[in-house]
Amino acid sequence: MLTKVDHIGIAVNSIDEAVPFYENVLGLKCENIEEVPSQKVKTAFFALGEVHLELLEPTSPDSPIAKFLEKKGPGVHHIAYRSNDVQKQLETATAAGCKLINETPIEGAGGKKVAFLHPKSTFGVLSEFCSEKQ
Amino acid sequence: MLTKVDHIGIAVNSIDEAVPFYENVLGLKCENIEEVPSQKVKTAFFALGEVHLELLEPTSPDSPIAKFLEKKGPGVHHIAYRSNDVQKQLETATAAGCKLINETPIEGAGGKKVAFLHPKSTFGVLSEFCSEKQ
Repeated sequence: MLTKVDHIGIAVNSIDEAVPFYENVLGLKCENIEEVPSQKVKTAFFALGEVHLELLEPTSPDSPIAKFLEKKGPGVHHIAYRSNDVQKQLETATAAGCKLINETPIEGAGGKKVAFLHPKSTFGVLSEFCSEKQ
Repeated sequence: MLTKVDHIGIAVNSIDEAVPFYENVLGLKCENIEEVPSQKVKTAFFALGEVHLELLEPTSPDSPIAKFLEKKGPGVHHIAYRSNDVQKQLETATAAGCKLINETPIEGAGGKKVAFLHPKSTFGVLSEFCSEKQ
């Protein structure tokens, strides 16, 4: 079962340039900036209520985020939904005819189990299921 | 001050086609489908935790959503942030050098006060401030 929107992933060309908008205009606090070499991105997290906003800056031209920026420009890249059972969520999705990118959950940032649905099945919104931190 | 993500607006070509994904794959319940003639859209709302997902289908070729779909394809159209004082939020945004679409809040769905920031100032994410229902 989904319990909340866990985070909204936002592709940006430059975290340094975008952070002041989130801090000064929206009044949020940047909790953490870190590089995730496996995904070829740098990330910045902001908490707002029960949701996090996650800025994603590519660190390489072949980063998935670089390709997204090239094709669509900066903007929302994905929505991550918190599930209390990611594996079961994937089975429900498959039973409903949805294609998956990850047939079983993979290890995500902070020890979360995560899995992505195939964008062909999600009406344009790249959608992720993720567990609580283990 | 922002208190939460109020809703995520998602542009779709067809609400009828997209609703089964949100109901059967994500397990959410469609609360309400209605047409908003002033915006030339049909909307469908789903609650998830403290956030709503709002599907937006254009009802006319000159709907802003039709233009968005033409340019970017289906996907996240905007993020709406709940503020306890939309007017003050706009003043903060202006003081931080942000351009506004609405200098003062306008009447939104359900009697909310809403205002949009100019996308040139928001790093690709169309951003809305909205009040609680009055």
